[in-house]
Amino acid sequence: MGVVLYDYWRSSASYRVRIALGLAGLDWQAVSVNLLTGEHRDTQNLARNPQGLVPTLEIDGQTLTQSLAILEYLDETRGLGLLPADAAGRARVRALAHAVAMEIHPVCNLSVARHAVDASGGAITMESWMQRFIPPGLAAVERMLGDTATGRYCHGDTPTLADLCLVPQMYNAARWGIDTSALPRITAIMAALNDIPAVQAAHPDHFKPEG
Amino acid sequence: MGVVLYDYWRSSASYRVRIALGLAGLDWQAVSVNLLTGEHRDTQNLARNPQGLVPTLEIDGQTLTQSLAILEYLDETRGLGLLPADAAGRARVRALAHAVAMEIHPVCNLSVARHAVDASGGAITMESWMQRFIPPGLAAVERMLGDTATGRYCHGDTPTLADLCLVPQMYNAARWGIDTSALPRITAIMAALNDIPAVQAAHPDHFKPEG
Repeated sequence: MGVVLYDYWRSSASYRVRIALGLAGLDWQAVSVNLLTGEHRDTQNLARNPQGLVPTLEIDGQTLTQSLAILEYLDETRGLGLLPADAAGRARVRALAHAVAMEIHPVCNLSVARHAVDASGGAITMESWMQRFIPPGLAAVERMLGDTATGRYCHGDTPTLADLCLVPQMYNAARWGIDTSALPRITAIMAALNDIPAVQAAHPDHFKPEG
Repeated sequence: MGVVLYDYWRSSASYRVRIALGLAGLDWQAVSVNLLTGEHRDTQNLARNPQGLVPTLEIDGQTLTQSLAILEYLDETRGLGLLPADAAGRARVRALAHAVAMEIHPVCNLSVARHAVDASGGAITMESWMQRFIPPGLAAVERMLGDTATGRYCHGDTPTLADLCLVPQMYNAARWGIDTSALPRITAIMAALNDIPAVQAAHPDHFKPEG
């Protein structure tokens, strides 16, 4: 059985997993679950992903959900080096990853932001919601990176879990017109990350459904 | 140097770490950072926690942030058994933990909910926000638990990372008057969890600042 990723092109969580699959050099197939037409809440998607979300990864006879759990699985089974060897380093990398994946991303998820907009009767806009949460969240990550453990990437000179969370978050920041010019550490790390073929190959533009 | 946890009694993320410290049998001290008076944004707290959040754990000469990163560190260095031995099991436990800690908790964080209320001019209330996100989030976790790997606890018969996320989330659900009677798996697991001394000892009521 091949490796199948059920994803959506603009889903940050899917994007993280696409990068890891690329780093692993796996032969895998993407199956798009269209969030705009509600395919994620279909019986088929719920059967593979009880939360009704993307991504879901079919691999090794397992059906895995939740992007960071998938990244840790790929790291453990494919030796991607996404976490450093020392416990303190692993804690730092996970803290950086979670500073993006738990603090910024869930709040700025489209379904959450759209609910805020709708339930506020228009007093909240998509833009105002994103502006409220993305800039301070990224500024906090920038402060966390002001540490000697930061290297070419978020932690040392090889990409880690933290970098795989940062890439989609910066894509989203650009999408919402967030000014990131005051984030020199993140900007330098992003330049290094964008040189990695697996990062380039995972870009949403390559996974946009046709039509 | 002793183990110090900078926490806040009602913070779910702090509550998770308190349970783990109890399971580890560590001698530790709680220092309250009052979120209501803005102490988390003070210079002192920012120096230890660049995100301006709680919890922060001082241990082994390290200053650790982000609750799930801390839990993984404690598991790795104190052998708490919070993750199963097999990679697929670890992926399931992390997925369950993240279904709470990434999907429900960040969106229902008080600072996010309060912003939604304030920016909506009152069209959104704290209660309506919680009702919108906690019940479907818990229902998804209930579905994920419909799996033979579920035992006395979320995964097998010993507490894992998933259980440590579930306990504070259920405390929050009760706080906001969420009806959880249609969640039999979670209800049974919570009953088992509430029998554990480390879970009892970590309850927010024991960490409420005086005055």
